[in-house]
Amino acid sequence: MARILGPRRRASQAEDLVPQSWYNIVPDLPKPLPPPLLPDGRVPPRELFERIFAKALVGQEFSSERFIRIPEEVRDVLIGLGRPTPLFRARRLEEFLGTPARIYYKFEGVLPTGSHKVNTAVAQAYYNMVEGVERLSTETGAGQWGSALSLAGALFNLKVRVFMVRSSYEQKPYRRVLMELYGAEVIPSPSKLTNAGRAVLERDPEHPGSLGIAISEAIEDVLSHDKARYSLGSVLNHVLLHQTIIGLEAARQLEEFGEELPDYVIGCVGGGSNYAGLAYPFMRFKLSGKKSSMKFIAVEPRACPSLTRGAYTYDYGDTAGLTPLLKMHTVGHKYRVPPIHAGGLRYHGDAPSLSLLVNEGLVEARAYSQTEVFAAGALFSKVEGIVPAPESAHAVKAAIDVALEARESGEASVILFNLSGHGLLDLQGYLEYLEGRLRDYEPESIDLSYLPRVSLRGGP
Amino acid sequence: MARILGPRRRASQAEDLVPQSWYNIVPDLPKPLPPPLLPDGRVPPRELFERIFAKALVGQEFSSERFIRIPEEVRDVLIGLGRPTPLFRARRLEEFLGTPARIYYKFEGVLPTGSHKVNTAVAQAYYNMVEGVERLSTETGAGQWGSALSLAGALFNLKVRVFMVRSSYEQKPYRRVLMELYGAEVIPSPSKLTNAGRAVLERDPEHPGSLGIAISEAIEDVLSHDKARYSLGSVLNHVLLHQTIIGLEAARQLEEFGEELPDYVIGCVGGGSNYAGLAYPFMRFKLSGKKSSMKFIAVEPRACPSLTRGAYTYDYGDTAGLTPLLKMHTVGHKYRVPPIHAGGLRYHGDAPSLSLLVNEGLVEARAYSQTEVFAAGALFSKVEGIVPAPESAHAVKAAIDVALEARESGEASVILFNLSGHGLLDLQGYLEYLEGRLRDYEPESIDLSYLPRVSLRGGP
Repeated sequence: MARILGPRRRASQAEDLVPQSWYNIVPDLPKPLPPPLLPDGRVPPRELFERIFAKALVGQEFSSERFIRIPEEVRDVLIGLGRPTPLFRARRLEEFLGTPARIYYKFEGVLPTGSHKVNTAVAQAYYNMVEGVERLSTETGAGQWGSALSLAGALFNLKVRVFMVRSSYEQKPYRRVLMELYGAEVIPSPSKLTNAGRAVLERDPEHPGSLGIAISEAIEDVLSHDKARYSLGSVLNHVLLHQTIIGLEAARQLEEFGEELPDYVIGCVGGGSNYAGLAYPFMRFKLSGKKSSMKFIAVEPRACPSLTRGAYTYDYGDTAGLTPLLKMHTVGHKYRVPPIHAGGLRYHGDAPSLSLLVNEGLVEARAYSQTEVFAAGALFSKVEGIVPAPESAHAVKAAIDVALEARESGEASVILFNLSGHGLLDLQGYLEYLEGRLRDYEPESIDLSYLPRVSLRGGP
Repeated sequence: MARILGPRRRASQAEDLVPQSWYNIVPDLPKPLPPPLLPDGRVPPRELFERIFAKALVGQEFSSERFIRIPEEVRDVLIGLGRPTPLFRARRLEEFLGTPARIYYKFEGVLPTGSHKVNTAVAQAYYNMVEGVERLSTETGAGQWGSALSLAGALFNLKVRVFMVRSSYEQKPYRRVLMELYGAEVIPSPSKLTNAGRAVLERDPEHPGSLGIAISEAIEDVLSHDKARYSLGSVLNHVLLHQTIIGLEAARQLEEFGEELPDYVIGCVGGGSNYAGLAYPFMRFKLSGKKSSMKFIAVEPRACPSLTRGAYTYDYGDTAGLTPLLKMHTVGHKYRVPPIHAGGLRYHGDAPSLSLLVNEGLVEARAYSQTEVFAAGALFSKVEGIVPAPESAHAVKAAIDVALEARESGEASVILFNLSGHGLLDLQGYLEYLEGRLRDYEPESIDLSYLPRVSLRGGP
């Protein structure tokens, strides 16, 4: 503990911008959030969640408090890693587009692993450390989440075991290097460490792995080790809660620019954590009627259109069908996501709270194809100087479209979007874009017939 | 111009930390700085410099003013790119080392291209734009400097042509992608665009290229185009001047931590710009006697030991012998630098002002081998959470050694070092380190017999 207490690592008046509490949108939702369910319609017993996650995180997952205090140690570590992150006004982009709109973006890419993921990784590692957990286990695809959790584990002296999809493990060694530099144990999945992994390898010793298999291995690993707990990088309420630090900072930074509430709040959506992190603290004021005209736009890839073309129904959180069922927008957990570069958006569902807001018409969803997204990312790089991660470039594309709409209408609207990460570890996609080799993927056909029909059947 | 004027892009009280003027150490040096010379001992006519560089930059190169005002447009753009950069206290590193020393580091890696290089690139692009220059031409090895200048060119609507060493162009495509995203024209060198390049290709069509050849091509390109000017990323006085923004910010940030002047100021040295940028504003107070006990440590690779084993003599700035001669510490412009990962430190000489300070005993030089440097970088990654660029890891290694010396002596000394860039584009070296494949290189034998014997023979 001592090593993370004591005076802050960074001195600047700016650190006052980092909030003291996270914002929990659940009590403010227009309808009660449907609970997770087991296939038989029962709500899973809390003990199940507490065997998998730290108790404090389960408490946050089901909390109905509007504000939850950020532990001082967590706040100090986040400041030490570079919070508050900057809010920039995209003046050159505005001038390039000839729009009367004022465009602002929150840049999370200044954090050490290059994205917002560390905001929740640090909080999750902290609570696990406090509860005496010795090891965190998780899965990662391309490695953004795995590297963030590995960093957080290093800062709180927790062992971290990352099951990494084998194809990424072999083809994208750099994110693995990052995790290993942070002291994590990175295991290509499927592995021989778990029954789930061994079963797959017996059928196919050369299996390239999948996020679903990696999740199965991480959860089995946790269930077979008392002092181990599981950690998830998106979708769940407590993860989104930790990310609201982004929007709470942005609201105060907009004031410093002399702005009030924005007219548009935009972000990309995989599981929903970076968008909810920026948007929910503003959504609060739309829901309360303080500024009901605010528009919220969630952007996803056309190749994985859960919000724009999926159904709002109960589905498993993982592709293997091991987790409880969540009420969410989904293209089905067996949907084969085309291999777009935006790996962080290749998820079949969306966070339950965000799905509810979309279903209620409070958040508009838009989908873009890969090539138009990279074109927007390349334009933004040249005009603003920062190369967006392929995921974040989806938000850039929508912000540009809204700014062009404002040029037509003549509205001097205020646009805020989340630049959730930089693209310095994703330059392969830009290389293909520049060489004209980047291709688009049509969405696969969406079949939900295999989903269990469940409805709530009595409480815990 | 309009597009870079107007209100700042970033609002924060922190921006007050960005200085209004750069610090020019030349008038404060203990001895007059020896001028550049032609092989016949004459000082090159100013016209020559002004044909190659923007006039304003030549004025700064030979200025004897102690402070030079930063144009508001340059300051605004640098703030828009993320200045002030954070100053962090390395509390966890202190505790890990068990040292009574307080360790602070200035982190330049939050800037868009991941290093300090953009500080001078923006200033150089600005002055060239003001003087009506249409295109900047430069050379780059691994691409750090080329990407910084490409970004600056994009921000000021200047064309940028980068001659990139062909072996890097082919083996390290990602930095090239970054430059091309910023709109620069990246040309593998040797090229058919110049006589210098064609001559090399005639002898060897497969020539891998070298920084020396790339410099020759860039200068020939400039001399054959009226509206083109050359841009250099280190060594020269005006480049070091632009980097003093680092140390001027750090001095004020140290005050925010409640510190006075540091006891040790440490940085890595290739040409010298990141170290001078941090150190000179503090060196001023050593030279003035305000705190003469301050120790300055410049760190270089053992494989390229210009400060620790080179001579202090006149040598060419480039390996081809095209530039005027500079009085500097050098291992000779024909020295074959071993292929260490820290590409930014693979330079045969050092900035004249820094060389003079080392020769006067005001700066101590240390050299480390590649494996101990990467070990320090890996330790820093795990303890502090930021992966240092291989160049910056040299500074980390020295800071750790000084902190361990403080543990022996029990001194609560204050250590300040420059973390000039992050290593997210240099993970290959860390991969080799983690796999035990990283090797050390003995310095080549140093032969200076071929250097011209020159001495000043009359003024301009």
